[in-house]
Amino acid sequence: MKLIASAVVAAVIASAGIASAQEFKDQLKARQGQFNIIALNLGVLGGMARGNIDYDADRAQAAADSLAGIAMVDPAALWVEGSDNISIDGTRALPAIWDNFDDFASKWGAYVTAANAMQAAAGTGLEAIGPALGALGGTCGACHDLYRAPQ
Amino acid sequence: MKLIASAVVAAVIASAGIASAQEFKDQLKARQGQFNIIALNLGVLGGMARGNIDYDADRAQAAADSLAGIAMVDPAALWVEGSDNISIDGTRALPAIWDNFDDFASKWGAYVTAANAMQAAAGTGLEAIGPALGALGGTCGACHDLYRAPQ
Repeated sequence: MKLIASAVVAAVIASAGIASAQEFKDQLKARQGQFNIIALNLGVLGGMARGNIDYDADRAQAAADSLAGIAMVDPAALWVEGSDNISIDGTRALPAIWDNFDDFASKWGAYVTAANAMQAAAGTGLEAIGPALGALGGTCGACHDLYRAPQ
Repeated sequence: MKLIASAVVAAVIASAGIASAQEFKDQLKARQGQFNIIALNLGVLGGMARGNIDYDADRAQAAADSLAGIAMVDPAALWVEGSDNISIDGTRALPAIWDNFDDFASKWGAYVTAANAMQAAAGTGLEAIGPALGALGGTCGACHDLYRAPQ
């Protein structure tokens, strides 16, 4: 009887988990998509900095504009309470985000500053990209270290 | 023998399809995430217009800034040739996008214009949201009608 009860409890918890993941499906896709947009465009700028992609001012600017555009996306609408990796599947967002939301928001603010600096720099020449990229990467890492579960 | 050959061909096509979907995984997540960001924020502004969400100038502005931010994302980096719904799984993007990329880009340009207009309007008062929302919705529909497969 105890085993059956445990199984029922587990099933209820599991179905509650699935319901919540479903509830936050749009937020998860939005968050993860935003990081994919960042990664794709950092890939272009990083490729130029490393010499794997020829520097092209227009293409560098388009990539940097994309990063600055993502910086304008309101984090509050995407990082909704209850959408952490303990409550639901399909995310690596740690509950610590919501325990320290002001710090999380200020780390996002650091990304915004660095993305805007990259937007100002990227079209001016290849030599401006490396330092701006280093600053940007630092803001990514600062947040991931505290608020993202390992893969 | 004919049946076996067909099965082999089907398996080769299927595995080629999977390989390509994998190849464009980041682009698909970026594209779909960007539409989820748009949908979430249109939901806020639409809720205010319909009276289901109380108008709040800061929240309306944050939603509109998010829409304008997405408008800065470079479409060329996301809509890569070969990532249509005939070539790969997991997307509703029709091959017609790449047959008419200039028209597709100009329809994206119409979204950019409407998103910027919403950004200028949303914080000024509830009565400005409805018309800006109508114009925005029109730009979504114009692209979906031609370039997105039905669900």
